[in-house]
Amino acid sequence: MRVLITGANGFVGRELVRCLLARGSLRGRTIRSLLVLDTDLQGLPDDSRLRRHVGSITEAALIRRVLADGIDVVFHLVSIPGGAAEHQYELGYQVNLLASLELLNQLRNKSMPPVLVYASSVAVYGADLPAKMNEHAELRPQLSYGTHKGMVEQVITDLGRRGEVDGRALRLPGIVARPRQPNGLRSAFMSDLLRSFAEGAAYECPVSAEATAWWMSARCCVNNLIHAAEIEGELRGQRVWQLPVLHLSIAQVVDALAASYGEERRELISYAADEPLEALFGRLPPLKTPLARAAGFNHDGNATALIRNSLNPAPPRHLPLNGDSPHEG
Amino acid sequence: MRVLITGANGFVGRELVRCLLARGSLRGRTIRSLLVLDTDLQGLPDDSRLRRHVGSITEAALIRRVLADGIDVVFHLVSIPGGAAEHQYELGYQVNLLASLELLNQLRNKSMPPVLVYASSVAVYGADLPAKMNEHAELRPQLSYGTHKGMVEQVITDLGRRGEVDGRALRLPGIVARPRQPNGLRSAFMSDLLRSFAEGAAYECPVSAEATAWWMSARCCVNNLIHAAEIEGELRGQRVWQLPVLHLSIAQVVDALAASYGEERRELISYAADEPLEALFGRLPPLKTPLARAAGFNHDGNATALIRNSLNPAPPRHLPLNGDSPHEG
Repeated sequence: MRVLITGANGFVGRELVRCLLARGSLRGRTIRSLLVLDTDLQGLPDDSRLRRHVGSITEAALIRRVLADGIDVVFHLVSIPGGAAEHQYELGYQVNLLASLELLNQLRNKSMPPVLVYASSVAVYGADLPAKMNEHAELRPQLSYGTHKGMVEQVITDLGRRGEVDGRALRLPGIVARPRQPNGLRSAFMSDLLRSFAEGAAYECPVSAEATAWWMSARCCVNNLIHAAEIEGELRGQRVWQLPVLHLSIAQVVDALAASYGEERRELISYAADEPLEALFGRLPPLKTPLARAAGFNHDGNATALIRNSLNPAPPRHLPLNGDSPHEG
Repeated sequence: MRVLITGANGFVGRELVRCLLARGSLRGRTIRSLLVLDTDLQGLPDDSRLRRHVGSITEAALIRRVLADGIDVVFHLVSIPGGAAEHQYELGYQVNLLASLELLNQLRNKSMPPVLVYASSVAVYGADLPAKMNEHAELRPQLSYGTHKGMVEQVITDLGRRGEVDGRALRLPGIVARPRQPNGLRSAFMSDLLRSFAEGAAYECPVSAEATAWWMSARCCVNNLIHAAEIEGELRGQRVWQLPVLHLSIAQVVDALAASYGEERRELISYAADEPLEALFGRLPPLKTPLARAAGFNHDGNATALIRNSLNPAPPRHLPLNGDSPHEG
C-alpha cells in the first residue's frame, strides 16, 4: 500500500503522518510507503516507510515523479489559507485550484482509480448563512479560497461519476489548536485563544464572547480523514461530505478552558470585536449533518473533549468520538 | 472599442460576428477592431474591422498575443460540445476548463476590468430536474461538460466580486438550427429535425413526439449575448443568468414547422426514442426566469417565431423579442 500526503508538514498533515505511521495500515493493507510532499519536511519523524519529496505541488513534473511508482491512497491537504489566498490571488489560484486540478488529472490516468481524500472547507458556503444549516446548504463563497475549494469538489464528483478517481471531499471547520504564528488563516483566532489560555498568556480576542464558530481538533480531523479513506466506494453516490462540527460560542470554549486550566485565567482574555471578521467567522449557525453522522464521521463530542484533544493537557489517550453529543446542532 | 470573440467561426459565433459588424457599436462606442479567434476562420465575412487570429484557445501565448493591444469586451463562446467532451475528456478539460481559466486569469491582469460574456449551458443542472424549475435550481451536472461550465461560472462570480473582470455568464438552452453535420452535440437532434423538415427530407427523431426541450434560435441567442455585454456593471450582484427559454414539445415544434412548410411533410418524420437521450434532453420541465426577464433577456416568443428566426424561411426581418409570451414557463 502506497499512500501520499500533500502538505504533509502542515498542521493537520503532521498529525496525519504520525497517526498513519502508528496505525501501520489503511483499507486493510499494510502501509509500505508513506510519500510525504511539502515545500519543507523538517520536523517529520524518522521512519523507514517515509518517502520524502521536497518541492511545490505547483510543479506538474514533481507530481509525476511522486506518482511514478503507483499510488493507492492520496490525502490532498496542501492549500494556501483563505486570508493569504485572498491577498495573493495568483498564489492561491496556482496552489489551491490549478495544482489540485493537475493532481486530479494525473490520478485519473492511473490504471487503478486511486482513493483520494480532499481537505475542502466550510469556506465554500460564504457568509450570510441560513439561520439553521444542513448538508444541503447553497454554496456562495465570499473568498477565492472557498470558490476554488468548491470547484475542486466538483471535479472530484465528476471523476467519481466517470469511475476514474475514487474521491471523497471533506468540508473542514476551523481546526484547532494551530501553532501561534502568522499563517494567513483568518480563523487563526480560534487557535490563538486556546494556545494563549493554555500558556497563561494575555489574549485580545478579535470576536465577541457571544461569537459562535464551528470547531474541531486536529486529532478528530485526522480520524475523519482516515475514515474517509476507509469507506468502500461511494456512499449513496455522495462524494462530498460536510463534517459534523461542534457549534460553540467563544464563551462556551472559555468555560471549558477555565475548567481545565483554572478560573483565574479568564481575566487574561479581553475582547475587541473586528466586525468583518466576526461576520465571516463569528456568526456561524447550528449545522445538522445527519448524512455524515450516519456515514461514520464525527466531531470531538463536547467542548471539554475539544480542549483535551487539541491541547492535550493530560497524557495522550484514545480519542472519544462521541456520536450523540448534545452540543451539535 | 476592441471586441474579441472566441469560437468566432462556430454556429453562434458567425451569427454574432455578422450582427456586431452590422450594429457597428457596443456599449455606446464604435467597434474599431473585432478580434476573431478560432482554429479555422474560413467563411467569416471580409471586413476591414476584423482582426483574424487562427489557432487554439488552449495556447496561452496566443491568448496573450490576442489581448496584447488591450481589450474592452470579450465574448467567450468556444467550447467542445457535451457529447464530444464526455468521450474525449482530455480535450474538453483543456478547452472548456483550463483554457477558460487561463483566459480569465489573463483578463484579470488588465488595468481596466474588461467586460466578459460567457456562453454557459443548461448542462450545469444535469438530469433529474425538479418538476417546476426556476433560476435557483441546484447544479448536479451529469456530464463533464456541464461540470466545467459551472466551474467557469464560479470563477466569473469570484473575479466579479474582486472587481477584476466584469463578467456575465449566460446559461444557453439548445440553440437551433445548427448545420446538419456531426458536431458532438448530444442535443443536435433539435436542429436536425428543423433542418430536415425545412428541406423536405425524411428524419427519424431520436426522442418521442411528447419529449419536451428548451429551445432558442441563434438569432435570439446573439441578441441576448449582446444585451449581456450592454448591461452596466452587475445587476443586484448577479453575474450568472439562466436565459428565458421556449419550453416546447417535439409535437409543438412539428406543428409550427407544418404551418410554415406544409402539412404533408409531417409524414417524413418518424420516431425511435433513444431512452438515455430522452432522459437527458427530452424531459425538460417548465423553467421560470423572472429575474432574467426583468433584466431584459428574452426567448424567441413562440414556436412560430422560433422557426422563423432559426430557419429564416422569409426574408430577414427584425427579431421580435416578445417579453410576454404564454409559451414560457
